[in-house]
Amino acid sequence: MSDPVLVEVLRGARLESRHRGAVAVADAGGRAVLALGDVECLVFPRSAVKALQAMVLIEIGAADAYGFGDEELALACASHSGEPGHVAGVTRMLAKVGLDATALACGAHWPLSQPAMVALARSGEPSALHNNCSGKHAGFICGACAMGIDHIGYWKPDHPVQRHVRAVLEDLSGEALGEDRRAIDGCSVPTWAMPLQKLAQAFARFGTGHKLAPERARAAARLRAACTSKPWHVAGTGRFCTEIMRLFGSRVFVKTGAEGVYCGALPELGLGISIKCDDGAGRAAQAIMAALIARFLPLSDKERASLRPFAGPTLRNWNGFEVGALRVTDALR
Amino acid sequence: MSDPVLVEVLRGARLESRHRGAVAVADAGGRAVLALGDVECLVFPRSAVKALQAMVLIEIGAADAYGFGDEELALACASHSGEPGHVAGVTRMLAKVGLDATALACGAHWPLSQPAMVALARSGEPSALHNNCSGKHAGFICGACAMGIDHIGYWKPDHPVQRHVRAVLEDLSGEALGEDRRAIDGCSVPTWAMPLQKLAQAFARFGTGHKLAPERARAAARLRAACTSKPWHVAGTGRFCTEIMRLFGSRVFVKTGAEGVYCGALPELGLGISIKCDDGAGRAAQAIMAALIARFLPLSDKERASLRPFAGPTLRNWNGFEVGALRVTDALR
Repeated sequence: MSDPVLVEVLRGARLESRHRGAVAVADAGGRAVLALGDVECLVFPRSAVKALQAMVLIEIGAADAYGFGDEELALACASHSGEPGHVAGVTRMLAKVGLDATALACGAHWPLSQPAMVALARSGEPSALHNNCSGKHAGFICGACAMGIDHIGYWKPDHPVQRHVRAVLEDLSGEALGEDRRAIDGCSVPTWAMPLQKLAQAFARFGTGHKLAPERARAAARLRAACTSKPWHVAGTGRFCTEIMRLFGSRVFVKTGAEGVYCGALPELGLGISIKCDDGAGRAAQAIMAALIARFLPLSDKERASLRPFAGPTLRNWNGFEVGALRVTDALR
Repeated sequence: MSDPVLVEVLRGARLESRHRGAVAVADAGGRAVLALGDVECLVFPRSAVKALQAMVLIEIGAADAYGFGDEELALACASHSGEPGHVAGVTRMLAKVGLDATALACGAHWPLSQPAMVALARSGEPSALHNNCSGKHAGFICGACAMGIDHIGYWKPDHPVQRHVRAVLEDLSGEALGEDRRAIDGCSVPTWAMPLQKLAQAFARFGTGHKLAPERARAAARLRAACTSKPWHVAGTGRFCTEIMRLFGSRVFVKTGAEGVYCGALPELGLGISIKCDDGAGRAAQAIMAALIARFLPLSDKERASLRPFAGPTLRNWNGFEVGALRVTDALR
């Protein structure tokens, strides 16, 4: 069975490329509100579950112990662009436990943001602080410190921090995550494959607290509030996650992951969303997420107009000429 | 009808993403040797036909008039990485007609090569010379100058240079390219949609000279020789086109295009190859091209071993850990 075409890429008036994918929208009990394509397929959620991975930081008491505010919590949930404010925030998190960039095991890469990369090239070299996952890693390190255990090896599957993360993912998804589900993420921590449908349920639980123990529900609410009030810290200048959460505030939580994954929650509707673009294309996953928000969330005309460029962006070339567009297919409307 | 899955992306041992596409392998008469997926679909060949677009440079006498050697001709066929040697070569081409970067209408972008981008950031800003298409544009400009006409507007569909390019594309593909087939490429010149099958035929003709007038066949042979003897000028350090042509010399011509297009020729077999990845993924188109070379070209064990990492590259994360791999499917074997 092949997943439906969800996004088309036009050049002029002609179809140039197309993206297939699967979409699950579900409530906290796992009831499907929308299922397109194979929602039972196992998906590595990658960075789309960073907010769920960050629950440990609050549940273990680290956020309180180190006085983390919304910016630090949003950074722990972030795939940030490596802009100076992101780097400063992660540095601050590590300083709370007397550590620095050398404690990070995520590896170094140049900032995702091109302006940040150019500016950094003019002053130095990238460090692990610029890695888009550095906030999450700083969170894990602080979690280990709050547990009173060695932070070295915090990224390994059998470290207590990662065991806690796995338990959170199992609780929210309702899925047993056996060793056969584990692979290594881009930043070296475990990533756990689960059915797309269960991933939507996990985000419904994250977005509402339903079906969660009170302490876990409170941790979810605190992270959601942090991300939606500090969306720049979750991604960065001009990024989709940032712009969408800026537009809708606490009404929408969204988070991108590598290989065409996008997850989100619409708390007022009690719904979680999970998207997997078959081919791993982020451009398509973004357009699908924008289309789903437009489909489910009650919107003013102004909000609807603001969403439109995200669901159907115009493509421009190096001279700024309009050369094409993305459009979502009828399957999503 | 959906195109077959041609490339799978694994994370650990599990399927993470997959790429569908169409493949045509044909001879100069249009006889299909391999047809996978919808080879009748209209495809914008984008930069994959730069060598065909560069025919004008030789046919009009510009290459001889300005004394262009293999490096300049390879640059005219290139999607280069913007490394210093590329920029110097294009500067040299423009200087032959008394012009400089300001004559280029391709727009500026940072070099495709990350080391080149970092080095440039430390010394200045990108110009149109760094645009991966600058060699092609310099070729168009020199073509206009050799025609004795104004080079201004050389990129517009009704300019004599572009009319010549269109005639070459029609001759090689055997396809009438009406106005309804035209769209705007990333560098603002026209790109003409044609059936994938006809694109393979065009590259069989380019690779052999069969079915072409003698003068056109000679122009094709000269460009092929330039690209396969100076493959670094066609792409750049570590790039697929460069590495493949370095491995096989005059036995293989390959050229990448945007949105998952790859074209090539195997002259000794009289075959042309065209690939379109449905979703526009370059990583998949490359793997497919490597698999097709391995399938059709008689190879030594050493050559076969050299091709393997291109057809099934290992994926590593920021720490260099092996996290997955690409693999081509049985449809390609």
